[in-house]
Amino acid sequence: MKYGITETVKTINSKIKINDIIYNIVEKKANAIKYFLEGEEFNQAIVFGAYLCGNFVADALTKDCDEVILVDVHPHLKEIIINEKIKFMDSSKFNLSLRNGELNPDLVVDLTGIGGLSPEIISKLNPSVLIVENPKGTFDKDINNIDNSVDRLNKGVKRGLLNTFRTSKVSKTSGSMTLVIDTVMDSCNDLKELDGVLYALPNLKYYEGILFHEKDIRKFIDEVNTPAITVSCLDEDLENEINNILLKNIDRIYSYVEKIK
Amino acid sequence: MKYGITETVKTINSKIKINDIIYNIVEKKANAIKYFLEGEEFNQAIVFGAYLCGNFVADALTKDCDEVILVDVHPHLKEIIINEKIKFMDSSKFNLSLRNGELNPDLVVDLTGIGGLSPEIISKLNPSVLIVENPKGTFDKDINNIDNSVDRLNKGVKRGLLNTFRTSKVSKTSGSMTLVIDTVMDSCNDLKELDGVLYALPNLKYYEGILFHEKDIRKFIDEVNTPAITVSCLDEDLENEINNILLKNIDRIYSYVEKIK
Amino acid sequence: MKYGITETVKTINSKIKINDIIYNIVEKKANAIKYFLEGEEFNQAIVFGAYLCGNFVADALTKDCDEVILVDVHPHLKEIIINEKIKFMDSSKFNLSLRNGELNPDLVVDLTGIGGLSPEIISKLNPSVLIVENPKGTFDKDINNIDNSVDRLNKGVKRGLLNTFRTSKVSKTSGSMTLVIDTVMDSCNDLKELDGVLYALPNLKYYEGILFHEKDIRKFIDEVNTPAITVSCLDEDLENEINNILLKNIDRIYSYVEKIK
Amino acid sequence: MKYGITETVKTINSKIKINDIIYNIVEKKANAIKYFLEGEEFNQAIVFGAYLCGNFVADALTKDCDEVILVDVHPHLKEIIINEKIKFMDSSKFNLSLRNGELNPDLVVDLTGIGGLSPEIISKLNPSVLIVENPKGTFDKDINNIDNSVDRLNKGVKRGLLNTFRTSKVSKTSGSMTLVIDTVMDSCNDLKELDGVLYALPNLKYYEGILFHEKDIRKFIDEVNTPAITVSCLDEDLENEINNILLKNIDRIYSYVEKIK
Ligand SMILES: Nc1ncnc2c1ncn2[C@@H]1O[C@H](CSCC[C@H](N)C(=O)O)[C@@H](O)[C@H]1O
Ligand SMILES: Nc1ncnc2c1ncn2[C@@H]1O[C@H](CSCC[C@H](N)C(=O)O)[C@@H](O)[C@H]1O
Ligand SMILES: Nc1ncnc2c1ncn2[C@@H]1O[C@H](CSCC[C@H](N)C(=O)O)[C@@H](O)[C@H]1O
Ligand SMILES: Nc1ncnc2c1ncn2[C@@H]1O[C@H](CSCC[C@H](N)C(=O)O)[C@@H](O)[C@H]1O
Repeated sequence: MKYGITETVKTINSKIKINDIIYNIVEKKANAIKYFLEGEEFNQAIVFGAYLCGNFVADALTKDCDEVILVDVHPHLKEIIINEKIKFMDSSKFNLSLRNGELNPDLVVDLTGIGGLSPEIISKLNPSVLIVENPKGTFDKDINNIDNSVDRLNKGVKRGLLNTFRTSKVSKTSGSMTLVIDTVMDSCNDLKELDGVLYALPNLKYYEGILFHEKDIRKFIDEVNTPAITVSCLDEDLENEINNILLKNIDRIYSYVEKIK
Repeated sequence: MKYGITETVKTINSKIKINDIIYNIVEKKANAIKYFLEGEEFNQAIVFGAYLCGNFVADALTKDCDEVILVDVHPHLKEIIINEKIKFMDSSKFNLSLRNGELNPDLVVDLTGIGGLSPEIISKLNPSVLIVENPKGTFDKDINNIDNSVDRLNKGVKRGLLNTFRTSKVSKTSGSMTLVIDTVMDSCNDLKELDGVLYALPNLKYYEGILFHEKDIRKFIDEVNTPAITVSCLDEDLENEINNILLKNIDRIYSYVEKIK
Repeated sequence: MKYGITETVKTINSKIKINDIIYNIVEKKANAIKYFLEGEEFNQAIVFGAYLCGNFVADALTKDCDEVILVDVHPHLKEIIINEKIKFMDSSKFNLSLRNGELNPDLVVDLTGIGGLSPEIISKLNPSVLIVENPKGTFDKDINNIDNSVDRLNKGVKRGLLNTFRTSKVSKTSGSMTLVIDTVMDSCNDLKELDGVLYALPNLKYYEGILFHEKDIRKFIDEVNTPAITVSCLDEDLENEINNILLKNIDRIYSYVEKIK
Repeated sequence: MKYGITETVKTINSKIKINDIIYNIVEKKANAIKYFLEGEEFNQAIVFGAYLCGNFVADALTKDCDEVILVDVHPHLKEIIINEKIKFMDSSKFNLSLRNGELNPDLVVDLTGIGGLSPEIISKLNPSVLIVENPKGTFDKDINNIDNSVDRLNKGVKRGLLNTFRTSKVSKTSGSMTLVIDTVMDSCNDLKELDGVLYALPNLKYYEGILFHEKDIRKFIDEVNTPAITVSCLDEDLENEINNILLKNIDRIYSYVEKIK
């Protein structure tokens, strides 16, 4: 708690940081995938899409896979990797390896979403287990039209669609960042209704610009390490309430892999 | 327009900046005051509270007042002043002048809001025209209890309460910054509903921390000079729609001085 | 609880009825008035506007007033009266009594709201204590322009404006019926977010048509004696949750008399 | 337009009736099915679930099918049928016919939703084209768990899932009545924001009680023949705006059959 402009008004930062919300979401996605895999072990897993959850999903897979390859079109995302056991490939490295016949995955996880991986690539890899992330959230005609995630589910003995939704709330995609933004925004709207709250401010930035235009991984990591919400209020004891409202909104996020025949 | 992570997704910044919204609001407040004053001229006007609208209100008053004094408890706000005709006083300078009998305002405008000026000070100044800003927005029990703006309207042949509201929308105070935040947030909520919009991100910061804790006026001015909203979407032609939605929400803000007997 | 179309789906009516919400609101208004009157006793109280709270306010005043007159332009509203001590007058009866000098109220309560009583009538009655209901809720330009409640506060040693708001929520007027509708609607919106709720249905009717166009008081009383909300859901144990959400929204309603100088 | 309580306030009923919204939705569903069928012709079509869209879907199918059978567990729904070419069967009649080998549909449309038809029945019928309605709307954990629509898609050369959503809005199911309720509620919320609107009232009833508990088809048909919304407002020229807001919300409803492999 700090004083605001005058001592009558207090400023409280949420204990929960943007980072905490990101972790919660990517963990839910990783857990959904692990649950779908039922403890099965794999020789070679390829995860497509390093940002934002791919990195964590790859990490979670290292326990059950001899080799985990993380592929991304953006070479600079190599730096985001947290686990040394993960082998990063940018697109040219991946294409080379593919042509050289070095890739023979029994598990493929495609997290590239809208405008991402082509169905043909997945088809060539021909894994026995295939998981594709459904980028769609609440129905949107245009997003629905452009999405081809089900077309990418074209191989495998076991095929699953990774769905992530916010229960009873609108999020237009299942993208981890979309879910963070909407969770923070809806929490602010809830907080604004509390007695004595002057305003609730989302500490959000266009993080994707930092990561994909500025290509500054360090800055990205710094920037998400910030309280999710700043509340201006009369009551200095609001800290728990702020966290509870954030938690209630975080709990709305569900991730599960839907089995597809 | 920029591409997002892949070329399928676009990133569009609103043309309207945080700054533009601030100007719109403080101009509405200044105009409401001018309208109430009906072209009357004054010898000495004292405006209390430099941030955020005080500075502009003082500027607007310079045309009709021989002397305009802007008073604030925070001495560093002197730097925010845009018009050389305005005389800045911090609290100690103000108290000294008051004791020395140098202050004899015929117009007092109190914009200090919650936890601001005491009714006694206004009473001592005894202006013939007195305007006090009502800090209250949509009803809130605690803010209602702490507000004493009507008690400050204790002198003057002509007395007015400066009200600023967002029509049919919830804003807990009339504070210019509260109105900026709520306008941007509600615009993001509206934008999220458009076909093909993945997310709408408010480029808001805790500006009051920059101004009152860091005391860095330059940084504040830099930081509000930023597009109000960043939209991630499929359709690259959304720029006008984004501005229109922001304008529609800005147009919800009304400011007027209510005559009090 | 009843089964819905199939046994999988349940239908639950809220225990709280439209009637209960009406009582809660009119009681809050009556209490606000009593609190403002501080136990003072009166010889003759005139309450203007029988519908919807006027009837109850008049009833509450019978304890402290030798005579309570309830005036309404609609003669058929006489039937709504619950307390025999209240003397009903329609407009022609009122005007006659006024001309005959039979009216000399020391307390006047004007609950007629938008388009109601003229300031001149109140001025003629010249009570020592005057309370006028502020019909305004969340700011609305047009309603703000048409409202003249403050102009009606033109007499009296003690003058008060009866305000009723829903904290942090939008209601465009303080009308008891408006508050009922908005409370039920917002509760439905909240209920829709619960897990397993298919839909939440507001059991609202255009009651004012029954009362003012059909002029059928009996039917009105019957129609408001209905569960406020019907919920279609999977979980048969939702009854308490439904009531709690309604109560939480009812608790948002605050009524108080603001002293006006 | 009628006057409200006083002449200052007007009451406007929407031209659009509950009925019109129902027709719009069931037509969208019927069109989605027709589009999926691509003009193919069938010998025997069985539609399960007469209420609320089944009746209209069956009607639409009569053009391309030699025989259309509409099956419902509720025998009294026979009366709802609008087209004499449709053959109604209640459950006992259906089971008898099934046992007698009289049923050999090449098209089956299952609109029974949550708690409806069992996958086994569909499996027995073994149609070459099978469409099952997905009852799910915006994600809800409990509804998601109970829904088995994909399990019912267990036969057929061509299989489709009938989806109906409200773009960017929350509806917990795709049920025609759920969509009507949410469309009316959201329109009321939008209307409440217009200048000069006191309140917007949804003319909704628990129609399913009339149809399934009272079993009164006539009354149901009468009751949905009512203006969807009643608006209390200052401005008598609001009729078009009311309709436009309703239309905008109706236009959010999309229905399409998703091809399932
Ligand atoms: N064809 C491709 N091959 C590999 N990576 C790709 C790709 N197309 C896009 N990507 C990568 O996939 C990611 C898309 S963003 C994915 C977000 C993720 N689904 C989440 O919810 O967190 C980016 O890192 C992008 O660089
Ligand atoms: N007693 C006092 N005397 C002078 N200035 C004061 C004061 N108490 C607070 N202030 C100043 O008043 C301002 C309060 S914030 C005011 C916000 C303004 N009403 C708006 O809507 O833009 C701050 O600048 C604060 O430093
Ligand atoms: N000039 C007048 N004199 C007496 N009653 C009047 C009037 N104008 C309107 N009325 C009555 O005042 C009521 C207006 S509706 C008032 C609603 C009330 N404020 C509430 O919140 O419950 C109606 O009963 C109407 O018939
Ligand atoms: N096993 C079954 N066989 C036939 N009809 C059934 C059934 N179970 C439920 N029904 C019927 O299916 C309907 C379910 S309600 C269906 C609503 C529809 N999907 C819409 O959106 O309009 C009811 O008419 C119910 O009586």
